[in-house]
Amino acid sequence: MAQLPPVPLTLEGSGVLHQFFRFDWKGWWNTPMADRERIAGEAARLLGELERAHGGTQVRSALYSQLGHKGDLILVHFRDNFGGLNQVELDLARNPLYDFLIQVHSYVSIVELGLYESTRKTYEEASAKGHETFGPEWQAEVQATLERQARAMAPRLYPSVPDTKYFCFYPMDRKRGEQVNWYKVPFEDRQQMMHLHGLIGRRYGYQVKQIISGSIGLDDWEWGVDLFSDDPVAFKKLIYEMRFDEVSAVYAQFGQFYVGIRLPVEKLPAWLNGKLE
Amino acid sequence: MAQLPPVPLTLEGSGVLHQFFRFDWKGWWNTPMADRERIAGEAARLLGELERAHGGTQVRSALYSQLGHKGDLILVHFRDNFGGLNQVELDLARNPLYDFLIQVHSYVSIVELGLYESTRKTYEEASAKGHETFGPEWQAEVQATLERQARAMAPRLYPSVPDTKYFCFYPMDRKRGEQVNWYKVPFEDRQQMMHLHGLIGRRYGYQVKQIISGSIGLDDWEWGVDLFSDDPVAFKKLIYEMRFDEVSAVYAQFGQFYVGIRLPVEKLPAWLNGKLE
Amino acid sequence: MAQLPPVPLTLEGSGVLHQFFRFDWKGWWNTPMADRERIAGEAARLLGELERAHGGTQVRSALYSQLGHKGDLILVHFRDNFGGLNQVELDLARNPLYDFLIQVHSYVSIVELGLYESTRKTYEEASAKGHETFGPEWQAEVQATLERQARAMAPRLYPSVPDTKYFCFYPMDRKRGEQVNWYKVPFEDRQQMMHLHGLIGRRYGYQVKQIISGSIGLDDWEWGVDLFSDDPVAFKKLIYEMRFDEVSAVYAQFGQFYVGIRLPVEKLPAWLNGKLE
Amino acid sequence: MAQLPPVPLTLEGSGVLHQFFRFDWKGWWNTPMADRERIAGEAARLLGELERAHGGTQVRSALYSQLGHKGDLILVHFRDNFGGLNQVELDLARNPLYDFLIQVHSYVSIVELGLYESTRKTYEEASAKGHETFGPEWQAEVQATLERQARAMAPRLYPSVPDTKYFCFYPMDRKRGEQVNWYKVPFEDRQQMMHLHGLIGRRYGYQVKQIISGSIGLDDWEWGVDLFSDDPVAFKKLIYEMRFDEVSAVYAQFGQFYVGIRLPVEKLPAWLNGKLE
Amino acid sequence: MAQLPPVPLTLEGSGVLHQFFRFDWKGWWNTPMADRERIAGEAARLLGELERAHGGTQVRSALYSQLGHKGDLILVHFRDNFGGLNQVELDLARNPLYDFLIQVHSYVSIVELGLYESTRKTYEEASAKGHETFGPEWQAEVQATLERQARAMAPRLYPSVPDTKYFCFYPMDRKRGEQVNWYKVPFEDRQQMMHLHGLIGRRYGYQVKQIISGSIGLDDWEWGVDLFSDDPVAFKKLIYEMRFDEVSAVYAQFGQFYVGIRLPVEKLPAWLNGKLE
Repeated sequence: MAQLPPVPLTLEGSGVLHQFFRFDWKGWWNTPMADRERIAGEAARLLGELERAHGGTQVRSALYSQLGHKGDLILVHFRDNFGGLNQVELDLARNPLYDFLIQVHSYVSIVELGLYESTRKTYEEASAKGHETFGPEWQAEVQATLERQARAMAPRLYPSVPDTKYFCFYPMDRKRGEQVNWYKVPFEDRQQMMHLHGLIGRRYGYQVKQIISGSIGLDDWEWGVDLFSDDPVAFKKLIYEMRFDEVSAVYAQFGQFYVGIRLPVEKLPAWLNGKLE
Repeated sequence: MAQLPPVPLTLEGSGVLHQFFRFDWKGWWNTPMADRERIAGEAARLLGELERAHGGTQVRSALYSQLGHKGDLILVHFRDNFGGLNQVELDLARNPLYDFLIQVHSYVSIVELGLYESTRKTYEEASAKGHETFGPEWQAEVQATLERQARAMAPRLYPSVPDTKYFCFYPMDRKRGEQVNWYKVPFEDRQQMMHLHGLIGRRYGYQVKQIISGSIGLDDWEWGVDLFSDDPVAFKKLIYEMRFDEVSAVYAQFGQFYVGIRLPVEKLPAWLNGKLE
Repeated sequence: MAQLPPVPLTLEGSGVLHQFFRFDWKGWWNTPMADRERIAGEAARLLGELERAHGGTQVRSALYSQLGHKGDLILVHFRDNFGGLNQVELDLARNPLYDFLIQVHSYVSIVELGLYESTRKTYEEASAKGHETFGPEWQAEVQATLERQARAMAPRLYPSVPDTKYFCFYPMDRKRGEQVNWYKVPFEDRQQMMHLHGLIGRRYGYQVKQIISGSIGLDDWEWGVDLFSDDPVAFKKLIYEMRFDEVSAVYAQFGQFYVGIRLPVEKLPAWLNGKLE
Repeated sequence: MAQLPPVPLTLEGSGVLHQFFRFDWKGWWNTPMADRERIAGEAARLLGELERAHGGTQVRSALYSQLGHKGDLILVHFRDNFGGLNQVELDLARNPLYDFLIQVHSYVSIVELGLYESTRKTYEEASAKGHETFGPEWQAEVQATLERQARAMAPRLYPSVPDTKYFCFYPMDRKRGEQVNWYKVPFEDRQQMMHLHGLIGRRYGYQVKQIISGSIGLDDWEWGVDLFSDDPVAFKKLIYEMRFDEVSAVYAQFGQFYVGIRLPVEKLPAWLNGKLE
Repeated sequence: MAQLPPVPLTLEGSGVLHQFFRFDWKGWWNTPMADRERIAGEAARLLGELERAHGGTQVRSALYSQLGHKGDLILVHFRDNFGGLNQVELDLARNPLYDFLIQVHSYVSIVELGLYESTRKTYEEASAKGHETFGPEWQAEVQATLERQARAMAPRLYPSVPDTKYFCFYPMDRKRGEQVNWYKVPFEDRQQMMHLHGLIGRRYGYQVKQIISGSIGLDDWEWGVDLFSDDPVAFKKLIYEMRFDEVSAVYAQFGQFYVGIRLPVEKLPAWLNGKLE
């Protein structure tokens, strides 16, 4: 079956937008208190609406107080399509709080479930029916399987933001070096490495929830990783342990890391008054 | 025929300018509504003129609402020459909307059709006539062939902007590493890799239109790639699949990726009023 | 015992925040002297509180006058958790001195003691009890050992800022190159290299105190190194000597280096008046 | 003759300064028209003087309208020494137009003629006289030869700016990689590669004029390359063809590329009024 | 003697601070002439004091007019300790000229004399007395030798700024690549390469004076190199020739290059009036 395609199948779900803002504390504290209170109220109102994506039952946007100079506030949004994400950007830009927000970074991606485990089976079943690889019937067959899986996976493809105290985001690539090149590794070897990699994640599953989104063609890294936990040491321990794992040790290239503390919308006015808790 | 030149022939068409702007929403919302309406009108008028390149029937400029912090508005312009592109820059700089635009990136290139398939045939025919390689008759012969092909390819060399909802742009290089060096690969191998690469693009052709422009000597990468589709997931799937293809897996180096949603000129005033749709 | 995990055990203590600020001297000297005196007083009051973490006996925050354009003032904070660090950021942002501070860099990490020497022993003891590696009893066993060690190491996990005249900070990674990859080196070899590395540090121990913090998953490098000494030449000599050591020569990748002179809180008003001493 | 030095002889001529400016269009269009006219006039007067280097017959400074966000105006200056270049900077800074210029890049170099073809002959002749290599007589002999050549080459060492419509500038290095290292290649091989490289340039000579300047020790790349042509496609074709040439394919490392359209001083007021032509 | 340490001994002298400033010409020319004259006078007075380090006979600070956009003014300071350098920063920040200075770069280092030639002899003599390597007597022995050498070398360790017209500064590292790693090269080979390297410098000694300072642990590169000459072409020729030398060709990694023209303090007012001479 050497002629099967080397690319693993993926399922795509929500569009994802990460926004990283510095907050203009100098301007803020020089604003009269009455104005600050009004602005805080209008911001909390908008963020409350965004959190529920204007009426749903899921938490689709979340706010974090960021540590360090890379920013002061992080917003993470899941929406059904890119138009929805772009409208969030426009809504924020119109809110009075925006006068004090300086956007310093962002990340655009789509929730992705990589199907390394089932891809070969899907390809082989399509081929077993006698269809020519990449021919229209073969593609239709593969597409039908993907759609079945997408329905089964819908809760993971269109997730709520996990309700944890700490948040970690980083983007990553698979290396395409001169000698070490993930995209030249045989499918079976990649599948095996991803399998072992998943075992580590599963061992930390009781402590750390993760959402993977794909950004090839959409932003500057290939994937974004969101981790959610009630203990920030768990981020450090999980990623350190993974770093010794073949697929990370050899093939992973990491971008910047961003860490925040969940800021429930109702605590935003207190935060704007200088109090985290 | 080992003495034939290693460089593939190319056809050049329109000059291309990509412009990426942040929009000064703070300044905008602090501008009186009547002024905003007037400015939106003047901007729409200019962009309408630019879209048709001051009178043609083709769509030669297009506007996109960009996702993420890398910018808010993207403008893509095709013009017959660099003077035309430079005049577009001056025209925009004079428009009242320019007070709210901060240009953060751009890309300068020329629409290019790479002729890997026909280059050898062209070289061999010129040589078959007994002309010395690179001699004046040989060059004239090659030049004549190129001009015939350019006439046949004119619609692709001087394209209209495809009418799709989503847009993706990225620049790229061919690697010149210590061991992996595209420019040292024999012509036949490059030709074969480009051929297989093209097959993937063709399979996605019903979903994704692409325009390649060359920028060697003009901007900081060797090529720019514009993709147009009504489904942004198609950008991700196409580029992911290509990444496993020899010519990309081993020889491609990618710059930043930019994604936008088409903003028809008539919808610009609504966008300036905070509404994508 | 080849099946033992390759990751060394670590103990985690205080959260650490480094802040690097440029000081707006132009704005400062254009501020009336009475205002400057009032602001200097309020800054000294807050920094005095931060130094003792609002009431403890340890020095948990320290201020340095930085050399060079990378900043003018450095603040280093140790706190029991990330919430405490984030609250420090908010407290500073509210202080009147903040009008003259431009934060240009920061570093987020957690005090870490790497247990290369004892890790194998801990793993083997847990395995010797017949528990399956990574099984729940095995993990509980390892966890219990870690907790015993953490109690014994508490003074180093929750340190006071050493009282020295000079300060040096830099972040670092272990290399994951195509041929040179720390994360692929067998545990025993890493342990041996870390042991020899430690010997150099110990030789300089009478002159240079160091605090290592881990930042995998928290910031852009894997570790942060704080050095404290009364002689800045000692920083240079120690790090130069280490650079010839296998683990640094081959496997270390360094970020930027930051150097400062301790500024006791009571000398801040003089500094703000242009006098270091 | 293995003991001959590996460094090729060079001749040095004019100091060269490239300046890249963004133009503050927002400030400009908000300036009253009478002021704009006066400032445009004073700018044209100064640039007219600079063009002739305050009285010569050669064109020693030239102005270009730049494409893309990397800048709006490029100035290229050739002067007899660095003091002359520095005085140009001071003269511009005093001109009223400078209020609207934001310098975003520059390049400092010296016109250089590399003598790969004649170096060995010069060395051998000096040695043939029995002088010890690098001894005072040997050096005097080499120096005398260089001075003869410099007199013969004076028009190329102290050039006028070629009178073409388009301009391209880029800096470059020769690679010093772990396996690919220009500075370890035997002199003869470098000489041969440079010879073949020159042949491509010569084939394009009717279309593209080039001026090479050296910047080792003066700026961040080793050389600067200025290309002048009436057809911008010639830049792309020439550099693409060269990229397959051994010396570029393997040993060249390129910086950013800058492209502009010649703006004769008398057309500057029109450009400042928003018209390229 | 394989057990001797691989690190070469070094002598340390003055602390060194390089400061690179852009000058706000726009603000300057918009300042009334009387104010400009007063400010120029106060600046010249302070720089005169700094030049002599408040009373010494040596020239310990020097001012240069920089070429290109990387800055307009360079200040180089030698002081006995870091406190002295930091006080210079505070003194400048208080001078009225500082309102027009934008610090864009700096470099912090310590004058260093590398003792590759004598290190082995020093180590062997200490060992010959029967002391254990790195034992307290061995260290005392080495230390005593270093102190003798430091006394003999005092004029070079605490230098005056050479009185030349042109100035060049650049930082550099020794490479620690995957195959090419200076810190893994045997001592004898490093010593030999440094010896040959020194011969080139000596040949240029009549034209170019150099001061090496070390910055491991202090700034972002390992060394800083200051070159002083009355002919800027000498910088280019010296560094080009060195680049073919083994230790540079293979093991050197260079940062940015900065070039300036000496501005005697008494000419600063003329410079501030737009005249270099």
